Amino acid sequence: MNVENFYSENIKNALKNDPPGEWMPNIPGNCIRLSSGFPAPDLVPVDELKEAVVQLLKQEKDLPLHYLGTPKMDKLKEQIQARLSDRGMRVADKALLVTAGACQAIDLIARVFVDEQTVVAVEAPTYMEALEVFQNYTSQFISIPIDEQGLQTKELERVLAERKEQGLPLPKIVYTIPTFQNPTGTTMTAERRKHILELASQYDFLILEDDAYGELYFDKPPVTLKAMDHENRVLHVGSLSKVVAPGLRIGWVAATEEIITSLYWFKKDLDHPFAQAIMATYLGNNNFDNRLNTLRISYQERFEALLAALKKYMPKSVTWYVPEGGYFVWIKVAGVDTSRLLQQAQDQGVSFLPGKYFFLNEQDGKEWLRLSFSYSDKKEITKGIERLGEVINK
Amino acid sequence: MNVENFYSENIKNALKNDPPGEWMPNIPGNCIRLSSGFPAPDLVPVDELKEAVVQLLKQEKDLPLHYLGTPKMDKLKEQIQARLSDRGMRVADKALLVTAGACQAIDLIARVFVDEQTVVAVEAPTYMEALEVFQNYTSQFISIPIDEQGLQTKELERVLAERKEQGLPLPKIVYTIPTFQNPTGTTMTAERRKHILELASQYDFLILEDDAYGELYFDKPPVTLKAMDHENRVLHVGSLSKVVAPGLRIGWVAATEEIITSLYWFKKDLDHPFAQAIMATYLGNNNFDNRLNTLRISYQERFEALLAALKKYMPKSVTWYVPEGGYFVWIKVAGVDTSRLLQQAQDQGVSFLPGKYFFLNEQDGKEWLRLSFSYSDKKEITKGIERLGEVINK
Repeated sequence: MNVENFYSENIKNALKNDPPGEWMPNIPGNCIRLSSGFPAPDLVPVDELKEAVVQLLKQEKDLPLHYLGTPKMDKLKEQIQARLSDRGMRVADKALLVTAGACQAIDLIARVFVDEQTVVAVEAPTYMEALEVFQNYTSQFISIPIDEQGLQTKELERVLAERKEQGLPLPKIVYTIPTFQNPTGTTMTAERRKHILELASQYDFLILEDDAYGELYFDKPPVTLKAMDHENRVLHVGSLSKVVAPGLRIGWVAATEEIITSLYWFKKDLDHPFAQAIMATYLGNNNFDNRLNTLRISYQERFEALLAALKKYMPKSVTWYVPEGGYFVWIKVAGVDTSRLLQQAQDQGVSFLPGKYFFLNEQDGKEWLRLSFSYSDKKEITKGIERLGEVINK
Repeated sequence: MNVENFYSENIKNALKNDPPGEWMPNIPGNCIRLSSGFPAPDLVPVDELKEAVVQLLKQEKDLPLHYLGTPKMDKLKEQIQARLSDRGMRVADKALLVTAGACQAIDLIARVFVDEQTVVAVEAPTYMEALEVFQNYTSQFISIPIDEQGLQTKELERVLAERKEQGLPLPKIVYTIPTFQNPTGTTMTAERRKHILELASQYDFLILEDDAYGELYFDKPPVTLKAMDHENRVLHVGSLSKVVAPGLRIGWVAATEEIITSLYWFKKDLDHPFAQAIMATYLGNNNFDNRLNTLRISYQERFEALLAALKKYMPKSVTWYVPEGGYFVWIKVAGVDTSRLLQQAQDQGVSFLPGKYFFLNEQDGKEWLRLSFSYSDKKEITKGIERLGEVINK
C-alpha cells in the first residue's frame, strides 16, 4: 500500500510549497545560547505558577480537569480583554479567541483566509514558523523588506501599485510583526503604521498583526495597529509566551465577532481548560504590571550588556539595528556567510541563528544573524559576544 | 468591508458542509447529568496531579515551561508506547505522535487524507465531534449502521460492492470506534474486526480506529484493529482523557512513520510541554494498571446501577444495548421523539443526549438517546433513571 495515494490536496500542496529540508542545527549543551528566543530561566515565574496550580486544584478540585473547565477560563478572557483595553484596544467578548499560543492563532487565520489562490505579503526577514504555516496553504508570497523603521511601506505601496497595473493578484493578507520584530528587533514608525492602514483600505487587504513582544518595550509603549484601525482590517495576535511562559501555550486573536466565529470553526483541539485555568489563577494572584516592569528592566539590562559587548568585541564590518524592546538584535556581518560561521561559533561555545532561516529566499539572509538577549544573563551575553567576536575576527 | 470576500475555499466548504445550527442544549445546574461523557469527579486524580506539578517544578524548575520542554515529553511517549505494546501494538518512536487530545488527532488525519474529493465512511450513529471535523473537509459521507455487534461490516461490504459496480467513488477512510462505541456502547465482534480489515485490503481504504474507551472494559480487553492489522492501514487514535483527565488534552496517533511525518506537517500549535510533562510525571509516580482496575470496577458498578434502574423504571417500549465497558448506554424509546422528551426530563431534573446529534441524518436518531454512567454516582444514576422513567411513562 502506498500511503501517498491517499493524500489530500492539503498535504500535497503543503509538501510542495515547503518540502521537508534541513532544519535548524542542534546546539551543543555547553554553548551560550544567543540563539534561543526563550524567556530567561530566572524570569519564568515557576513558584508563582506552582502556587497557582495548588490553589486552583484546592479550590476547584476536578473542575479545571474536565473538558468544559471552569469559570476561570472566562476569567482569563476578561484578563486579556483588560490588558488589551489598557493598550487602546476595546475587544468584545465574542471578538476574542484564546488559542494554544500565537502559532495556533496564525494557523487558524491561515485556514480561514488563505488558499492556493491567495497571495500573502510577509516581511523580509520574518518569523520562520509563521512562514511555514502560510506555506501549508499557499505558494504565492510577496516579500517586503524591513529596515530600521520596520516594514518599508513605501516599497509595499510600489509593489501593490505595480501588481495592480499589471493585473496581478493583490495580497489578501499582510503578515507583520510591527513591534520589536522577530528577527530584526525593529519597530514600525507611527508614520508607517498610518501608511499601512491606508494601504489596507486602498488595496483592500487584511493585516495580521503579530504582537508577541509588544509589552516588552524599554522606554515607551508603541501604539498597536489594532488600536489605530477603524475598518476592522487588523487581526491582532498576542501571546503570554514571552511575558509568562511559552510552555503553557496561551495566545489569542482579537478581531471582529464574525472573524472569530469563523476561526472557531477550525479550532478542533477543543480548549485547554487546565492550562487556561492555571494562567487565570496566576494572573489573578499577581500584579502583572509589576511583573512587566521587572521584565522590561531585566531585558533592557541584558540588551545593554549585549550592545556594550558588540561595541567592544566586533570588528567594523559588523553592524546592527538597535531595538527599543523585545528579545532580538539583528546583526550584519558584511562579506560573511553566517550559516558557515555557525559551526565555528558553536565550537567556541556560542550559538546564534543564521539569517537564512528568516527569508523566503535564503540567499537574502546570508550576511545576517539573529542574536537573542532574552535567555542568557548579562555575564553570559558578554562572554558569548566576546567568543563570537573572536570567531568573526579570525 | 465584507469579510466574506476574504474567505478561503477551506472555510467556504466547511460552512457549506456543516452550517452553524442549533447546538446542544444547556443543562440546568440541578439536573442529574446522564448526558455528560466526562469522568466522575471522584475518579479524577486531582491530588496526584497536584503532586505531579509540585514535584515536576521542584525538580525541573523552568524547563517544562519553555517551548522545547523537558525529557519528560519523551518519557510520555515511552509510557504511551509501553501501554500500546502491552495491548499488542508495537509502535516505533517515529510512528507515534502526541496530540492535544483525540480531537486534534482526528483533525490532523482529516487534513492529511480528506478533501472535497474524498468519501469518508462513518458509523451511524457516531461521535458527533468527529463528524464535525470531517465536515470541515468534505461533504461526501457514507453512513454504515451499527447494531449490538458494532459496525455492520456486511452492510459496509454491500455498499462498497454496489458503489464499485456503479462506478461511484469508494471511501478512502473509514472512521470507527470499535470498542465501547460512542454513543452506542457496542463493541465490534472479532469476526467483524477481521472482516473490516479484509475489506480495507480488498477495497483499499484506511481505517481510523478511535480507541478512547478501549481500556475501560468490564471483563476482558478487546483486541484492537491496530493489533490485527498487517498492512498498516489502521491509524490508531488514543487518549488519556477518559482514564486520567480530559482537561490536560493528551491524545495520540499511532500509525506508520510516513503518516506521522505528514500529520506533523499540520501540527502547528507546537507541543504542549507543560501538560505533557505533568502527565509523564503523574504516570511515572502512579501504578497505572491499579488505577485502571479501580476505574473498571467503579464504572462497572455505575453501569450495573444504571441497568438495574432501567429494568425497574422503564416501560416495555424502552430497550437498550448492553455495553461491556466504556461510558455509555444507547436507549431506544419506541414511538417517542427524544429531542422533545428532553425538556420534560430536564424539568424533572435529569439530562440525556437525544439521538439526533449522533447521526448525519438527524431523523435516524429520533427514537434514541444516549445515557452516560461515567459522571454521576450510583445513587444519582438510580434517581436519574427513576425520573426519566416517570417522564417516559407520562
